[in-house]
Amino acid sequence: MPQPAPAALGDPLYEVDTPALILDLDAFEANLQLLATAAQAAGVRLRPHAKTHKCAEIAKRQMALGAIGICCQKVSEAEAMVNAGIDNVLVSNEVVGKAKLDRLAALRKRAWVGVCADDAGNVDDLDAAAARAGVRLPVLVEIDVGAGRCGVAPGAPAVALARHIASKENLEFAGLQAYQGKAQHIRGIGERRAAIDKAVAMVRETLDGLKAAGLDCLIVGGAGTGTFEMEAASGVYNELQAGSYVFMDADYARNLKEDGQFVDTFRHALFIHTTVMSHPAAERAYLDAGLKAFSVDSGLPTVHELEGAELVRASDEHGALALSNPGNRPKLGDKLRLIPGHCDPTVNLYDWIVGIRDGRVEALWEVTARGALA
Amino acid sequence: MPQPAPAALGDPLYEVDTPALILDLDAFEANLQLLATAAQAAGVRLRPHAKTHKCAEIAKRQMALGAIGICCQKVSEAEAMVNAGIDNVLVSNEVVGKAKLDRLAALRKRAWVGVCADDAGNVDDLDAAAARAGVRLPVLVEIDVGAGRCGVAPGAPAVALARHIASKENLEFAGLQAYQGKAQHIRGIGERRAAIDKAVAMVRETLDGLKAAGLDCLIVGGAGTGTFEMEAASGVYNELQAGSYVFMDADYARNLKEDGQFVDTFRHALFIHTTVMSHPAAERAYLDAGLKAFSVDSGLPTVHELEGAELVRASDEHGALALSNPGNRPKLGDKLRLIPGHCDPTVNLYDWIVGIRDGRVEALWEVTARGALA
Repeated sequence: MPQPAPAALGDPLYEVDTPALILDLDAFEANLQLLATAAQAAGVRLRPHAKTHKCAEIAKRQMALGAIGICCQKVSEAEAMVNAGIDNVLVSNEVVGKAKLDRLAALRKRAWVGVCADDAGNVDDLDAAAARAGVRLPVLVEIDVGAGRCGVAPGAPAVALARHIASKENLEFAGLQAYQGKAQHIRGIGERRAAIDKAVAMVRETLDGLKAAGLDCLIVGGAGTGTFEMEAASGVYNELQAGSYVFMDADYARNLKEDGQFVDTFRHALFIHTTVMSHPAAERAYLDAGLKAFSVDSGLPTVHELEGAELVRASDEHGALALSNPGNRPKLGDKLRLIPGHCDPTVNLYDWIVGIRDGRVEALWEVTARGALA
Repeated sequence: MPQPAPAALGDPLYEVDTPALILDLDAFEANLQLLATAAQAAGVRLRPHAKTHKCAEIAKRQMALGAIGICCQKVSEAEAMVNAGIDNVLVSNEVVGKAKLDRLAALRKRAWVGVCADDAGNVDDLDAAAARAGVRLPVLVEIDVGAGRCGVAPGAPAVALARHIASKENLEFAGLQAYQGKAQHIRGIGERRAAIDKAVAMVRETLDGLKAAGLDCLIVGGAGTGTFEMEAASGVYNELQAGSYVFMDADYARNLKEDGQFVDTFRHALFIHTTVMSHPAAERAYLDAGLKAFSVDSGLPTVHELEGAELVRASDEHGALALSNPGNRPKLGDKLRLIPGHCDPTVNLYDWIVGIRDGRVEALWEVTARGALA
């Protein structure tokens, strides 16, 4: 069973039960608008990644501002989004195994649903699943543009796989998936730019090969929050897949701060609302949020707007605060906000996003695809 | 909405969809029996920690083998367990804030429910909540026996807080919570033993003080999977709160292995069932399980029984496998098992535990308190 919502509409923020995911609606809406405007100005489409928020209400707001559709990473995530009314989903990932392929093909009957591939045998399986469902399935070739994860090599291998897709009766070659994930978290903007320049060159080489083979790309997709301006200006990408921009997180913020570039652009919109539940010594206190309330893969969350307070450790249900400023220490029962180290796996821990404006709960949104792993 | 179960009863293991939490029922039952027998032999009660499994079906099996009740860390977790029929729950943690205290007191009407405290003001709030609900609430004093987290100091401060509890009309002083959490993960058994020896001395000192004050302890609780034999033999602890023993995880296993002690006792019972979803090069492949399918706070999961395969990196939805043995490489679509680095936050990511025996699905258990953070 999903957990009950931690608040009711209209509640003041201080009455929201903890731990809870709090969304600053002003900051969130500004973030949505900013990327929508940037994509429009650059003349590229926006297909934000829903793996960050997993929330249909957010996806609908992204599309209302001009996004052509969304990306998902999982079939079950795409199902949850289509069930909630989203009609255009790219699964920006490979899908393997008959059960999942049949679910994917079934979903194509209800919405525009595309998928990525990096293996000829998998393409055969995709074709068979599409045939069983009686659909024509759009398939993108994923190319490895430097992230060193999934994907075929750019150039000839990608063109060969695209040809293979195009040769299938029940598939439609729909373009290139060219996400440079590693570049998103490189600290210096110069190095990020160099990584994206290389990616762009690989995409261009592949596009030339596809053109020579007579294959058009509906979608040339990629980009994340750390690099989207570069892909947008590249002349080769036509869809941006940034996700984290809606919330921002501590890791992305460290990049933007060091660059001195985007500081005044995206704002922290997502917070973990917590309570001081033990305060055994003046210099240390414990929050009621630990490893089940935030992910730590990209570092611990940071404490929002409480000078001299630092989250220094987390166990399953506790977050340890070090308090260095004697004049500025929270009391037992006080509520604090944390900025997640990494939003995506943190959001996946919650059933609800609590939208706040002017100190009150204005929105209660289900995390529609929470736990959608399959 | 909870995710659909990844399998049906009777399905062969290879048809279980991935990622899924797989429970080896033979190993699990052996683990349950082993600790039940050890507690009985030592003449101490067993109150296993349900924060590990969050699963009422498992709690029921622990109690069927003699456990007096369970521990929970959160009020919402206790609610989920009482709703599922568990009638004896110690919230082995502090509970702060009126909303939660009222939920806790309401729960006391339906089951034996105790809680811990480490602050006099919080004790006043507990008393007020119990008065509002018309219940008498058992409260344990949490003492810090070396973990350096929550709890008052042993000895006089603990006795003072116990007196304060005992003076309250709607509270009942119910004992000591004395969990040495830090000791659980110390690598060498000698150092673990030294840490527990110190904890035992602190508990003894506090018990002497309580006795002098005329206060009896119903519960002297603590112990985890890494040290339970020591607390059981201490002569001061009367309830063991181990939790991880039901599943075991990679981190505890590293301890046991280094000790050469428990190797033939607890077995790995919990696994993450995954699929190879991309295999772009001979030496590397990608699993369909990443940061949303396992926690990495205690290290990456390890690969179960596939020599030459190592999980070397994880992103949100991908696990990167390094494959060093050319003669032993999985193919695209193959299913592998991972051993979680840390079970507790991993289980919390899933809606279902899939129980397997003789290669088939014998049980499908809901993770009853999944996401119960409040």
